[in-house]
Amino acid sequence: MLPALKQKHQPDFVLVNAENAAGGKGLTEALARDFYSWGADGLTMGNHTWDNKDIFQFIDSESRLVRPANFPPGTPGQGMMVLKKRGKSLAVINVQGRTFLPPLDCPFRTMDALLEQLGTETRCVFVDFHAEATSEKIAMGWYLDGRASVVVGTHTHVQTHDERVLPGGTAYVTDVGMCGSHEGVLGMEREAVMHRFLTGLPARFTADEGPWQFHAVLTEIDDATGRAGSIQLIRKREDEFIYE
Amino acid sequence: MLPALKQKHQPDFVLVNAENAAGGKGLTEALARDFYSWGADGLTMGNHTWDNKDIFQFIDSESRLVRPANFPPGTPGQGMMVLKKRGKSLAVINVQGRTFLPPLDCPFRTMDALLEQLGTETRCVFVDFHAEATSEKIAMGWYLDGRASVVVGTHTHVQTHDERVLPGGTAYVTDVGMCGSHEGVLGMEREAVMHRFLTGLPARFTADEGPWQFHAVLTEIDDATGRAGSIQLIRKREDEFIYE
Amino acid sequence: MLPALKQKHQPDFVLVNAENAAGGKGLTEALARDFYSWGADGLTMGNHTWDNKDIFQFIDSESRLVRPANFPPGTPGQGMMVLKKRGKSLAVINVQGRTFLPPLDCPFRTMDALLEQLGTETRCVFVDFHAEATSEKIAMGWYLDGRASVVVGTHTHVQTHDERVLPGGTAYVTDVGMCGSHEGVLGMEREAVMHRFLTGLPARFTADEGPWQFHAVLTEIDDATGRAGSIQLIRKREDEFIYE
Amino acid sequence: MLPALKQKHQPDFVLVNAENAAGGKGLTEALARDFYSWGADGLTMGNHTWDNKDIFQFIDSESRLVRPANFPPGTPGQGMMVLKKRGKSLAVINVQGRTFLPPLDCPFRTMDALLEQLGTETRCVFVDFHAEATSEKIAMGWYLDGRASVVVGTHTHVQTHDERVLPGGTAYVTDVGMCGSHEGVLGMEREAVMHRFLTGLPARFTADEGPWQFHAVLTEIDDATGRAGSIQLIRKREDEFIYE
Ligand SMILES: [Fe+2]
Ligand SMILES: [Fe+2]
Ligand SMILES: [Fe+2]
Ligand SMILES: [Fe+2]
Ligand SMILES: [Fe+2]
Ligand SMILES: [Fe+2]
Ligand SMILES: [Fe+2]
Ligand SMILES: [Fe+2]
Repeated sequence: MLPALKQKHQPDFVLVNAENAAGGKGLTEALARDFYSWGADGLTMGNHTWDNKDIFQFIDSESRLVRPANFPPGTPGQGMMVLKKRGKSLAVINVQGRTFLPPLDCPFRTMDALLEQLGTETRCVFVDFHAEATSEKIAMGWYLDGRASVVVGTHTHVQTHDERVLPGGTAYVTDVGMCGSHEGVLGMEREAVMHRFLTGLPARFTADEGPWQFHAVLTEIDDATGRAGSIQLIRKREDEFIYE
Repeated sequence: MLPALKQKHQPDFVLVNAENAAGGKGLTEALARDFYSWGADGLTMGNHTWDNKDIFQFIDSESRLVRPANFPPGTPGQGMMVLKKRGKSLAVINVQGRTFLPPLDCPFRTMDALLEQLGTETRCVFVDFHAEATSEKIAMGWYLDGRASVVVGTHTHVQTHDERVLPGGTAYVTDVGMCGSHEGVLGMEREAVMHRFLTGLPARFTADEGPWQFHAVLTEIDDATGRAGSIQLIRKREDEFIYE
Repeated sequence: MLPALKQKHQPDFVLVNAENAAGGKGLTEALARDFYSWGADGLTMGNHTWDNKDIFQFIDSESRLVRPANFPPGTPGQGMMVLKKRGKSLAVINVQGRTFLPPLDCPFRTMDALLEQLGTETRCVFVDFHAEATSEKIAMGWYLDGRASVVVGTHTHVQTHDERVLPGGTAYVTDVGMCGSHEGVLGMEREAVMHRFLTGLPARFTADEGPWQFHAVLTEIDDATGRAGSIQLIRKREDEFIYE
Repeated sequence: MLPALKQKHQPDFVLVNAENAAGGKGLTEALARDFYSWGADGLTMGNHTWDNKDIFQFIDSESRLVRPANFPPGTPGQGMMVLKKRGKSLAVINVQGRTFLPPLDCPFRTMDALLEQLGTETRCVFVDFHAEATSEKIAMGWYLDGRASVVVGTHTHVQTHDERVLPGGTAYVTDVGMCGSHEGVLGMEREAVMHRFLTGLPARFTADEGPWQFHAVLTEIDDATGRAGSIQLIRKREDEFIYE
């Protein structure tokens, strides 16, 4: 899927949220290699960053991966990275919301500090705001309007239909959506999820093996100003996809 | 907006989620009258049902309004109604999620009971599942697939891009989205919302007066079987709209 | 500890909350046998009931154990039992709160239904309300005042200093407190708990092996009326305890 | 009550948690004056600090009041103060938990920063940790053991029976308990609280006018070392109190 889309759109940078890559729970080094081989330039994470303990082995030597920047000082890994490719550079930041999620440092003040730290190294700034509440995500979009090139939400796993370029030049969407089974619940087997909602009993969630769906967004950024020119939703389902 | 769309699509029934009609907090009788005069056939509510005390004066005499059915027995108002118009009938049910929301009776078992109670009165069943978590909403879609004609989510105020007809014939979307200002946060003034996220201090939220956005979904239901044939997202912004 | 206290106070019935018996996570059949051999007449559970999968093997054949009664119909195990001993009988009910805990059926209406079902079988009714919020626990105490003999809270693991007999004759305390290490956090190793609060990273919690503390309450109930005559806190620490 | 107890125990410093003084919601300047006139040397607050808007008028000119220190930089008021009296000085810090409470800065790291800032000004440090979860409160006790003289919890309104001096010399109790009506729920009229739990409908909570209960703790601190020598629970109910 990814190679076909890269072929079609010729993006400068491809970013993947990989927090649920390992069967729904975290990321392994092998999977990170897979993503790079399929064409990803960088990976972002979220509240499931630490679910697979493998991460502690490779996160500190992994320059192309960011975890939420608002974990406390001293947390393994990094919250911001600057990717460079064919003369272009893109700062990539991962930050996590606090509404309906565990407490972390303030994501808004964390963004202020990171943008200050970034200085003039690049005007192209991509932010993956991993958060649950639509209010917190939209507030972040407005907060960074004119300061980041792109602010996209992740975590709810459902693509939202509110993509737009804000007045200050920031491309925004509340949630990019997920990649995974089309017949589960957020990619997991639906029987287990429904069992838990119905009975309150524990259930082992495993990744559903049904036909996939693929969600992404495509944005254009002006190198000189860092302003986004457009944002476009991508939604593909396995049954609609033509393998070329 | 609503009259123009009714003209264009000629729907049999128009339903409006009205829980935030009164400046973001509940519904007044006067506003309910307004919705009917603009062409609404029925109103649904949610967690903000009781925010405006006016509701206690009219909810029990109001046959075209449903509030979440999984409030305890004895709660004012009704959770299900059957609308009739030009020989067609449509059961309309409002039910509320429990993830990240206050505790209520189980929405899944409430749906079982209501569908049992409805019996064969009509095969056309519309469900507004007012809930926060995408997992709970998608689980409800699957739970009712083949038993309800339409299951749409509300509450997050952001339209989702996952509209589909499930295999059993139920039209589903995780969130319909809101109607209100395009420049606020969930329709409220964004300065106040950002102030609260940034400072943790209380802020008075007032409805933003900026240009509007309008979100809805349009579905077709087969009267004979109750199966949905299609579901289509509607998204209009004031600056895109041509007043005809 | 328990044998020594039984010797001293000669209680008719001894009840133990056993939800964290298996290293902090649920209960095994072997541990249940241990509790009975040490003198327990019945066991109550809570939100950790299902943490150890062993429970599903024995809960349905175990007449001396109750799990929260407000799990949905069809849940394994029972929420109420009537213990009989030396001509006395005691109804024991376990019910779980919903504030800051996962959604279940309404604990207040569940209590109404259970007391209705119990009818006149016995006037002596013991309720273990497993809940987090002090407001919900105190509200339950008042709700059952005059209808239950004893309402004690569990779950926060810290004994509260508010034991009293309410005006209607119900002995009440917000939390009985725990049995386990005196040097951990809620019985778990404190380093791991502090690590999680400080870093937000996952930590494996294991039961702390430090000197124990033991908490209980002792109440007297009038068989004829079901009214409680007294409630007394018991708090023992290993270093204070004289093995006789 | 307070004058009688001062007479009896002759404390050097008297501190009052005043976040619910104004009918359950915040504090007014007039009430602050009342507390001082009754013998309080300083006031602490909590999550209800901002409920009464009067606070914004006087908090910045009020040297004897602390609000949670882990609100963001720029928040009105102060999180730490040093009280001086008869040649003794006592640092008083208020900090708020994050479990089951709105997100703030990390209370543990905030404590590190404040103790660093305090330096050697005084060795006597009193901390009011306003928090819901017993785990977070106990963790803070251990975290500050040997660094603060006293760590007491507030917010749950129910006194806990776990007062102790930790091995490093810090007096600790999970919750001091409240002052207010003995017949309500956390000081509010119990009918309204139960109505909300039972119906899920909004209810106006007003302070209950029943007979009062009074809770406090009394500790001794060694001026030279800052170590606590003892901690003692105080619990008085109106019907038990002898006005002398
Ligand atoms: Fe995810
Ligand atoms: Fe996530
Ligand atoms: Fe809403
Ligand atoms: Fe809502
Ligand atoms: Fe427990
Ligand atoms: Fe528990
Ligand atoms: Fe309080
Ligand atoms: Fe509080």
